[in-house]
Formats: sequence, C-alpha cells, structure tokens
Amino acid sequence: MKELKQITVIGLGLLGGSVTLAVLHSFVGVKTIGFTHRASTRRKAKQLAIADEITGDLPSGVEGSDLVILATPVCTFDQIFREIRCALPNGCIVTDVGSTKVLSHCWAAKLLPETVHYIGSHPIAGSQQRGVEFARDDLFDHAVCILTTTKKTNRQALSTLKKFWSNLGCFVKLMTATEHDRILAGVSHLPHIMAASLINANSEDVLKFAGKGFMDASRIASGPTNIWSDILLTNRENCSKKIDNAIAELKKVQKAIKAGDKKAIVNLLEKARNKRAVLIKYKMRKKELSS
Amino acid sequence: MKELKQITVIGLGLLGGSVTLAVLHSFVGVKTIGFTHRASTRRKAKQLAIADEITGDLPSGVEGSDLVILATPVCTFDQIFREIRCALPNGCIVTDVGSTKVLSHCWAAKLLPETVHYIGSHPIAGSQQRGVEFARDDLFDHAVCILTTTKKTNRQALSTLKKFWSNLGCFVKLMTATEHDRILAGVSHLPHIMAASLINANSEDVLKFAGKGFMDASRIASGPTNIWSDILLTNRENCSKKIDNAIAELKKVQKAIKAGDKKAIVNLLEKARNKRAVLIKYKMRKKELSS
Repeated sequence: MKELKQITVIGLGLLGGSVTLAVLHSFVGVKTIGFTHRASTRRKAKQLAIADEITGDLPSGVEGSDLVILATPVCTFDQIFREIRCALPNGCIVTDVGSTKVLSHCWAAKLLPETVHYIGSHPIAGSQQRGVEFARDDLFDHAVCILTTTKKTNRQALSTLKKFWSNLGCFVKLMTATEHDRILAGVSHLPHIMAASLINANSEDVLKFAGKGFMDASRIASGPTNIWSDILLTNRENCSKKIDNAIAELKKVQKAIKAGDKKAIVNLLEKARNKRAVLIKYKMRKKELSS
Repeated sequence: MKELKQITVIGLGLLGGSVTLAVLHSFVGVKTIGFTHRASTRRKAKQLAIADEITGDLPSGVEGSDLVILATPVCTFDQIFREIRCALPNGCIVTDVGSTKVLSHCWAAKLLPETVHYIGSHPIAGSQQRGVEFARDDLFDHAVCILTTTKKTNRQALSTLKKFWSNLGCFVKLMTATEHDRILAGVSHLPHIMAASLINANSEDVLKFAGKGFMDASRIASGPTNIWSDILLTNRENCSKKIDNAIAELKKVQKAIKAGDKKAIVNLLEKARNKRAVLIKYKMRKKELSS
C-alpha cells in the first residue's frame, strides 16, 4: 500500500501481534513497529520476529508512522493518546482494535491533535487465548471489521484504512460508534456475560459432568479478564439493557417449563433454532463461515 | 461380549445409529437390530448398513435380544415400554440414551415386567446434528456415560451394561436418577436454555455481526427441538431452579456494571475463568479432553 510506509502497533497481545504478523506477510515495503511496556513480551516478540522493530518507548515508537493502531485494553486509550499526541506526524491515521467505540471516539476528539485522523476499527476476530505467542497472520482472514466514523471523518483516511483491513482479508463495514456499541453488546458482550454466569451458576462438582456442548457454550468465558472488564465498563448502559433482554427470554422459557406448556417450549426453542439457521446461511453466503 | 448375543436399538437418529455402528465395529458375533417407525429412515439406515437387521415392527424387533436400548425422545418411552413388554425375553436388559432419568425409571418400574432389568444410560455425547446420516462409530469414544441405578438394580445386569459402554470407549459413572437429573440440569439443560435465550434476545439484524465466539456459545441451540422440549418437560423442577441460579448470576454482573464497580466485575469474570481452567485440567487428566 503506497499510502502506508510505516505502521506502529501499540500493545503486542494476540490481536496486536496478529496485526503486525499479517502486515509483515501481506504488505511489501511497509515497516512495522511494535510497542509493549513489558520487557518479557518484548523478548518474546523479538524471538517470534513479530515486527521489524520492537520498542518499549512510546512517543518515539509512533514517530514517522502513517498508521498507529492501539491494541491494548480500552481503558488505557486515554492515557496512550496523551502520551503519543505530540509525537504523531501530521496526517497520521490513529485507530484501535478495541471492542467498544463510543468512549474511544470521545477521548480521541478531546485528546488527539486536529492534524491526525482518528477512526475506530473493530476486527471481529480473536480467541479465548491471550499473548503474543498465539498471534497468527491469518487471524483476520474472512473476519468482519467494523470501522466507526463521525460526520467529520476524513474521506482519504477512511479510504486508506478500509484498504488496509481489506488487504488483511477483512470484510469492512461502516457505522457510528453508538450503533457499534449497541450491536456489539448483543452479539459479543452479552454472550461473554452469559458464559461467565453459566459457569458461576454451577458448583465445581457439577461442572465435572460437563460435555462438549457445555465446553463450547462457555469457551469465551476463558477470555482475558482485564480486557473484558474494560469492555463491560466502557459499554455499561447497552450491556445492562442486553442483560435485561436475556433475563426476559430466560423467564419466558421458565414460565413455559413451569406450566408444562410443550407448545410454548417448542416455539421458543424453534425460534432460536431457525434464527441460528438463517444466520449460518447468511454467513456462508458472505463467506464469513466455510461449510 | 459373551453376555450379549443380540442387541436391539429403538430409534435410529444420531445417537441410536451411532450405537449400532459402534457395536458393529467393536463387537464380534453380536447381532444388531435397528427399529425405526419411519420408512424413509429405514431406507437410509439400510443404505448406510447401520445394523444387521432394520425393522419397522416393534414387538418382534426386541424378541430374543439380550439388550434393548431406547434412543427416541424421552416422552415416547412409556408408550414404547407398553409395546415391547410382552415380547422382552426373561433376563433382558432394557436401557435408554435419554437425557433425563427420573421419569424413565418411574415408567420402567410401572410398565416393564419384573423378569427384565431396567437401568438408565446417559452417554454424554452428541452434536447439534440430527439424523442417522450423521451417525458415527466413534461418537462415544472418551465420553462419560452415566448409569442410573436403584437399590433393586440387578448386579449382574449392571456389570454387563458397564462392560458394554466401556467397550464402546465410555468412562462409566453410577448415580441415582434424582442426582442425574439435578446435575444434568446444570451442565446440559441450562446451557441449552441459555443458548436459545441468547439468540432470542437479539434481532436478526444484530445477529449478522456475530463472530466466532457467538457461534460457539449458541451452537447447542441448533439441536433438535423435539428432543429438547422432551428433556425440559421431563426435568421441570431442576431446570426452573437452574434458570433462577443463572438469572441471579446475570443480576450480579448487571449490578457491578451499573455501579461501574471494576473490582466486582473482575471478580465475577475471574471466578468463571478459574472454574473453567480447573475444569479443563480435570478433563485433560481424565482423558475426556485432548490437548
């Protein structure tokens, strides 16, 4: 990509490491710089040759970069914006791979200079694993990547960022930060809360009898706690609403079970089954799922 | 197995078909008979050579069998017991692969002759797929199989049934039907209810943004509705209690989110994460999960 000569990724966990790896393997002639404040992660990242340059110095790490990507927990973004704002070149694109967007946009508007372009990115990819050692250059392949924009978003910067994620294999979609946080509360934050609650609703003795279905249903609850607490804290209202929705649905099933109402139980289960079947068909058609 | 010369499986879906296939491939000199009331399933089962003999006649299908296994929805068991009771040979073992056990034991005690031995079986294996075409001879490999017994359970019959499931690759555990239904409500029935509720709590437009985590968390909701409505209807009290437990856990997370209480959120997520880590270690040690 001729628009991008140097890219800095701040935070080298599963996502950050996968971005630098994917850039190394997909783009020719683009320099990658990876920042992490942990010396042990820097050592690992160097061993894995995860980026052209690994640094522990934040302002200098973004100097001369055309694109800066934050891949740390959402609640660190305001502090990072403060630390890098004076070192960012004019025209630089700043983005992140965080799971909530309203707060990031607020902080960016307040803390970043007007000479740089902030656009949110959310590649919907990842796993319950954490750490640079799980980074993969194909993590973003066939993933949806939502870019969050405002009325003021610079068109040229948006076009460059769209091309960047497309080149890493993503299907790019655009929306506002508000819409993003509402949608993600339903398809990402609520499932995490439900998975954790499913486990916490059972004693360890009972859990020993869990089969494959339980393991799959609860897998996401093994995700990194610090990342997830930040996500829930930066999307409080939407998450609380979705918990209300889930409780309402659980109560519908409970009412039908208590009444021994077979028809009502079948209707609720069949509704979910059909919605999931429609979803799978949609994702197959969009090539987001393979058969 | 010298104790078993002929086995009849009633119901040729994923589970029933997998039992006959596994017996065909694991036991030498044992005749397998598969019953299904649907002509179309009989045709498929014959094409797939799922059993030595495929029949649509129920009483004659169990004649001369040492072991009869019901693999139909739980709510059909009382009717099937009525249909087969006069044709069962003396000393025959009757079992099932149903997901709830209290009602099956009640029906067996009421409807089966004293000359046959009923013991419940629950191999914790399966998938969201249905139908004989998905039957696999290795479905029970490394699965836990719970056998449910009473004070009156015949020791010889129990020993034979234990050997049967062990030979199909299962880890056999014994408990009462009451204990079984309480435990399974937590690790199997509640996850199904939560997966369905997770889907029903979201509109189809929002679901389009679901990622891999959501797909895994909701996978079990694609299971066959008729089987699952029977399971919930035959374990009403336990399921209702577990829904209460889940709602209580969801409300704990919601309270912490509303209060912006990071420590409380971290504690809840970390508790679930740790419990799942302990569970995975346990299952690896028991060889129920591979690394």
